[in-house]
Amino acid sequence: MNNDWSDLIDKMRQGSVRALSRLVSRVENRDPGWMEAMQQIYPLSGKARLIGVTGSPGAGKSTLTNGMARELVFRGHKVGIIAVDPSSPFSGGSLLGDRVRMKDLWNLDQVFIRSMATRGALGGLNQSARDVAKILDAFGKDFVLIETVGVGQDEVEVVRAADLVLVICVPGQGDGVQALKAGIMEIADIFVVNKADREGAEEVFLDIQAMLDLDPTQDNSRPPVLRTVANQNEGLPELVNVVLNLLTSSGHRRVWQDVRIREELIGLLEKQLLGLIIQYWEKDGSLEKVVRQIERGERDPYSIVQETLDRMLPKIKK
Amino acid sequence: MNNDWSDLIDKMRQGSVRALSRLVSRVENRDPGWMEAMQQIYPLSGKARLIGVTGSPGAGKSTLTNGMARELVFRGHKVGIIAVDPSSPFSGGSLLGDRVRMKDLWNLDQVFIRSMATRGALGGLNQSARDVAKILDAFGKDFVLIETVGVGQDEVEVVRAADLVLVICVPGQGDGVQALKAGIMEIADIFVVNKADREGAEEVFLDIQAMLDLDPTQDNSRPPVLRTVANQNEGLPELVNVVLNLLTSSGHRRVWQDVRIREELIGLLEKQLLGLIIQYWEKDGSLEKVVRQIERGERDPYSIVQETLDRMLPKIKK
Repeated sequence: MNNDWSDLIDKMRQGSVRALSRLVSRVENRDPGWMEAMQQIYPLSGKARLIGVTGSPGAGKSTLTNGMARELVFRGHKVGIIAVDPSSPFSGGSLLGDRVRMKDLWNLDQVFIRSMATRGALGGLNQSARDVAKILDAFGKDFVLIETVGVGQDEVEVVRAADLVLVICVPGQGDGVQALKAGIMEIADIFVVNKADREGAEEVFLDIQAMLDLDPTQDNSRPPVLRTVANQNEGLPELVNVVLNLLTSSGHRRVWQDVRIREELIGLLEKQLLGLIIQYWEKDGSLEKVVRQIERGERDPYSIVQETLDRMLPKIKK
Repeated sequence: MNNDWSDLIDKMRQGSVRALSRLVSRVENRDPGWMEAMQQIYPLSGKARLIGVTGSPGAGKSTLTNGMARELVFRGHKVGIIAVDPSSPFSGGSLLGDRVRMKDLWNLDQVFIRSMATRGALGGLNQSARDVAKILDAFGKDFVLIETVGVGQDEVEVVRAADLVLVICVPGQGDGVQALKAGIMEIADIFVVNKADREGAEEVFLDIQAMLDLDPTQDNSRPPVLRTVANQNEGLPELVNVVLNLLTSSGHRRVWQDVRIREELIGLLEKQLLGLIIQYWEKDGSLEKVVRQIERGERDPYSIVQETLDRMLPKIKK
């Protein structure tokens, strides 16, 4: 690991937000040496609790996340926010820029906000979000709020890394059933009916309760269902109380610990392997060559992949 | 490749729907030999046009897809439908079962319907959908309609494999902005305002037009915006006309061909790698061992992955 990384890590440990910010960017970009840097950072982490916030677009997740952050800061905690925004797979830009978020929380030194967008088709957002959470943890944050934009598979993966998951529903979107469809139901620790002052909010509340009644796996861990009006700060102190209670209740989510570590290991290895192979493939233009061959109908992708695997992973036999 | 696969491929080529069905299942399940089977199937494909249908939950995508299939069959085409349903990452079940779909199209021999759910947290739905589309193509389908459930990143990936993408919007969901957020905007070739007899439909129509006006990348390829009431078959013949016109217009989507082949290659490689990694790691319980070590704080995942990479890929130096 070069000196540059060590220097950043030292400064980050001394509390430099600038160093933290650069560290996050460099790890996100997979700058050379990032794995070694994470090996240094990892042992410093382990104290922060990760809270995932998900729900359909327009549910007010950003407002609610900001409000929770503010509430946690008022209670003396240090908070980081990771806004995972899959936005456009083409432009790669993040719609919720850090700056927009900052405007709302600019005067809270205790909150570090980071927006992350998908990095092209090769994704890995899930892993990146975990890495960034670990850096924030090492920096000394007590809570890291991970907020996702949608309720797709990616988002499920992202929030699965959390210690506690909030699923935000709002009136007028038929969220009950949609959340169920996207597999969010199973990972929700708390349901929040946001915009609870709107027409239809009670219906959403009852829908969620009805869904929970139907779930045969629910035992004594039935997720609470809360009401908030996040943009008026209504219900947020109560929500934070419930979050803190759940996080300190013994055994919460511990059952997932194994699964999370496994997933993290496998995801990390997969991403690294893939990156190395693509690098190998792109070198000397061999990827371009096989693409042309497939285009002309001379080769098929399946045999090319098999050949490549046989060549690169001689030690592993299928 | 064992005889079983060859036998299935032969029977599929002779038109056996039963063989087709079993082939699809076995490829989806990654039964041993599936890569070799796909190598046989690939050269038989290349004629079918893939049409992606996406949009938010509740937009009526299934009804619209079924309606389009029916219309295409009436015009003498052979049609396959792949319903991609990310449903639950835990239960793995498909909410829209083949049977439910079949009820609507049961008497159309020319339509083959396949529902696909995500296969656990390790995903790969995108690649599986492409494989199944290729098998349906090889079987002789003229059109394969790929329908997704949501508008997340996964869905974007799935429909990117298509020759043409329909984005379905409906009144009352604020779809305009949401579609934009999920990056659907860029991949839409046709926008459809479904449930166009409902209040607010005209607003959605105008919202989409306004979005298209704002998009600086639009030139002469501005996507048409159509109105349908799919459950009453209204607007479907017109929609099919537009689809067929776009598909035959010269140069449509050809610009994407390279990107699609690259993505397919990389996706396939990634999928295969993942399988190999897990197999390699789970053997002799070594994955369990390192998970425990991480849990006890004795090791960190980054150094374990780096070690494993060095061992697995002796030929590649970073």
